[in-house]
Amino acid sequence: MGVVIPDDLVEKGKSRIVLLVMDGLGGLPDPYTGKTELEEAETPNLDALAANAALGLLRPLLPGVTVGSGPGHLALFGYDPLEWNIGRGVLSALGVGFDLQPGDLAVRLNFASRDAEGRITDRRAGRPSDAENRRLVEKLRAGVRSPEGVQVFFEPEKEHRLVLVLRGKGLSAALQDTDPQETGVPPLPVRSLEPGAEATAALVQRILDDATQVLADEPAANALLARGFAEYVPYPSFQERYGLRAVAIARYPMYGGVARLVGMDVLPRPEKDEGVVTALEQSWDAGYDFFFLHFKYTDSRGEDGDFSAKASAIAAVDRLIPRVTALKPDVLIVTGDHSTPSRYRAHSWHPVPVLIASPWTRGRDQEGFGETACLRGELGILESKHLMTLALAHAGRLTKFGA
Amino acid sequence: MGVVIPDDLVEKGKSRIVLLVMDGLGGLPDPYTGKTELEEAETPNLDALAANAALGLLRPLLPGVTVGSGPGHLALFGYDPLEWNIGRGVLSALGVGFDLQPGDLAVRLNFASRDAEGRITDRRAGRPSDAENRRLVEKLRAGVRSPEGVQVFFEPEKEHRLVLVLRGKGLSAALQDTDPQETGVPPLPVRSLEPGAEATAALVQRILDDATQVLADEPAANALLARGFAEYVPYPSFQERYGLRAVAIARYPMYGGVARLVGMDVLPRPEKDEGVVTALEQSWDAGYDFFFLHFKYTDSRGEDGDFSAKASAIAAVDRLIPRVTALKPDVLIVTGDHSTPSRYRAHSWHPVPVLIASPWTRGRDQEGFGETACLRGELGILESKHLMTLALAHAGRLTKFGA
Repeated sequence: MGVVIPDDLVEKGKSRIVLLVMDGLGGLPDPYTGKTELEEAETPNLDALAANAALGLLRPLLPGVTVGSGPGHLALFGYDPLEWNIGRGVLSALGVGFDLQPGDLAVRLNFASRDAEGRITDRRAGRPSDAENRRLVEKLRAGVRSPEGVQVFFEPEKEHRLVLVLRGKGLSAALQDTDPQETGVPPLPVRSLEPGAEATAALVQRILDDATQVLADEPAANALLARGFAEYVPYPSFQERYGLRAVAIARYPMYGGVARLVGMDVLPRPEKDEGVVTALEQSWDAGYDFFFLHFKYTDSRGEDGDFSAKASAIAAVDRLIPRVTALKPDVLIVTGDHSTPSRYRAHSWHPVPVLIASPWTRGRDQEGFGETACLRGELGILESKHLMTLALAHAGRLTKFGA
Repeated sequence: MGVVIPDDLVEKGKSRIVLLVMDGLGGLPDPYTGKTELEEAETPNLDALAANAALGLLRPLLPGVTVGSGPGHLALFGYDPLEWNIGRGVLSALGVGFDLQPGDLAVRLNFASRDAEGRITDRRAGRPSDAENRRLVEKLRAGVRSPEGVQVFFEPEKEHRLVLVLRGKGLSAALQDTDPQETGVPPLPVRSLEPGAEATAALVQRILDDATQVLADEPAANALLARGFAEYVPYPSFQERYGLRAVAIARYPMYGGVARLVGMDVLPRPEKDEGVVTALEQSWDAGYDFFFLHFKYTDSRGEDGDFSAKASAIAAVDRLIPRVTALKPDVLIVTGDHSTPSRYRAHSWHPVPVLIASPWTRGRDQEGFGETACLRGELGILESKHLMTLALAHAGRLTKFGA
């Protein structure tokens, strides 16, 4: 399942769909003005789109359930996160562009600091620079030997984060994290969580022990913590499920990673948000049917708890909208993967505003793009996993069910 | 399933949740004023709460489907009634505080009247007093002998109702009611509804025959009718599923019974509605995380078909609200288990207004607590079984799904 449409309804077409995701878009009202970040933000371009768009609210998973970015995006892509539950290790490996093979075991590592007794003193090793991260990873590559029958890969991510991938036969991801989630205690041992995973647990323990030995003389990054063991199982692709040649344009590795998981091409990461739209313009006639654009700051400013900075981040994306609409996509969707209300300072469960701009909508003369307008919109409150069917329908890419 | 959240999302916390249920809360508008009982009632305290609460409508089961109080409450507690279908016999036994054991067979009995030919003349034996009921039950206990290998228990309920519990090995609840649902005919025989239930059917028939013999000299209560055979299967508890230590405060046995089924403690039954809130106040610091309060008259007055009496019953609960909010629960939920419109004079399928008061809501300056305001609310129309996830989320007791 997870396929929420009967596959044989999909028709090939020439229409182009743009899915523009503002991470953590949904918010909560300021107690004084009664307006959310999105409602407060200067968004003349989004408001103009919303006036005649199909508006609604997307529930990422279930009422009350808050999702991470991985399941949040999978749901937008039409993959039910309850079925396609993806581990952080796989997301991170895909995010750094590592060419995962089916059966690979991936886990996210932190460089950490420990004292002479082996107790963790800093779970992020003082947040090393990306350059320092690469140096440390090179040292691990040189110093840690692959056990027989297994290939070991270390890949740098950002700051204190790196990825470990094991390739071999019969590896199990049923392993407990070694990150104790607190300082003053040693890392946890690698423990198997189900019968049959004991051999992999011992193997990973040996590799982590070796790696810690290699890092022993480092002043800060002299320990490793592992989180999110996951096996790579390829998903049915956008091409297979929807007949869409899809491409992702995102500045942060993880979003390219989740897009790659569903078979999207991923363009080189732009350095600025403007560059995301430039890459869209440049690839507009490259043969793609579906363009996924990702903007991150809306979520970051929400997590900072800064209402006006989040509103400004939304306004900054709004200023890029005319360049998107100038391309005349057949369907333009603007939404988020989840809510990150600045007052809540974290991802939340609240449904996320969504706008589908297309000629085939009922909405007319609606008052801007915001949570309240979306609650009154023609789409109602629906699960994010149903967005793709709506996208295909508005793009004229779904045929009739039944005669 | 029926477990509507992945269990490992639940986090322990210190927040306290109050679920205040007005039985049969939902109504239909008066044809002249256009307002429902709830909208017509004087509810200044609920209206003040509703102004900034998350409002919505709860669908107890499925569109158009009317539920009884048992499934209505189970759904509110997050147990999908389609999966956790509970027999009336078990509900009644739990309601009178009988200590059911797994495998027990429980069935609800009515004292009835029959004529010389054995035909039922009154399905309720003239509604005996509770004291008379207890006398009759004592007579049955003294006169009916337990067959070998089986323990037989008779327990008084109210008026004409009592409960029969059988304890033994291999009992089956697949038995047809003996209540013919009409007068002028004899009770139906106990018939098995599936292969393997024949022995239990014969056993129950023998016990009912013996009991009828014991009652033969009674002027009114000289027959018994059986309804709702059910086997007791314990449910996963609130503590197990939600990490909540929960307590129920209800004046009527059945509501304590359904609460006990999901592992709640049940406080002694208060004599008045005010006593429900007094018990809440007295147990507020007793270590509970979740308080279920039940008020019955809203449903009774709806079944009476008395619009203004139902509105008054709602207003009476409203006057108790300040004592609840004075305790400063982190989350206060007000709703019903189903609708009982006074114009309909019975339980109905109409979705039930719900209000979640918490700092984490979008609703601002909404116009009171009523069906129309709730239809416009941020929760939309959702199934009752999702209420608990929302309660946990607003109480800060759910962690993120996925990274």
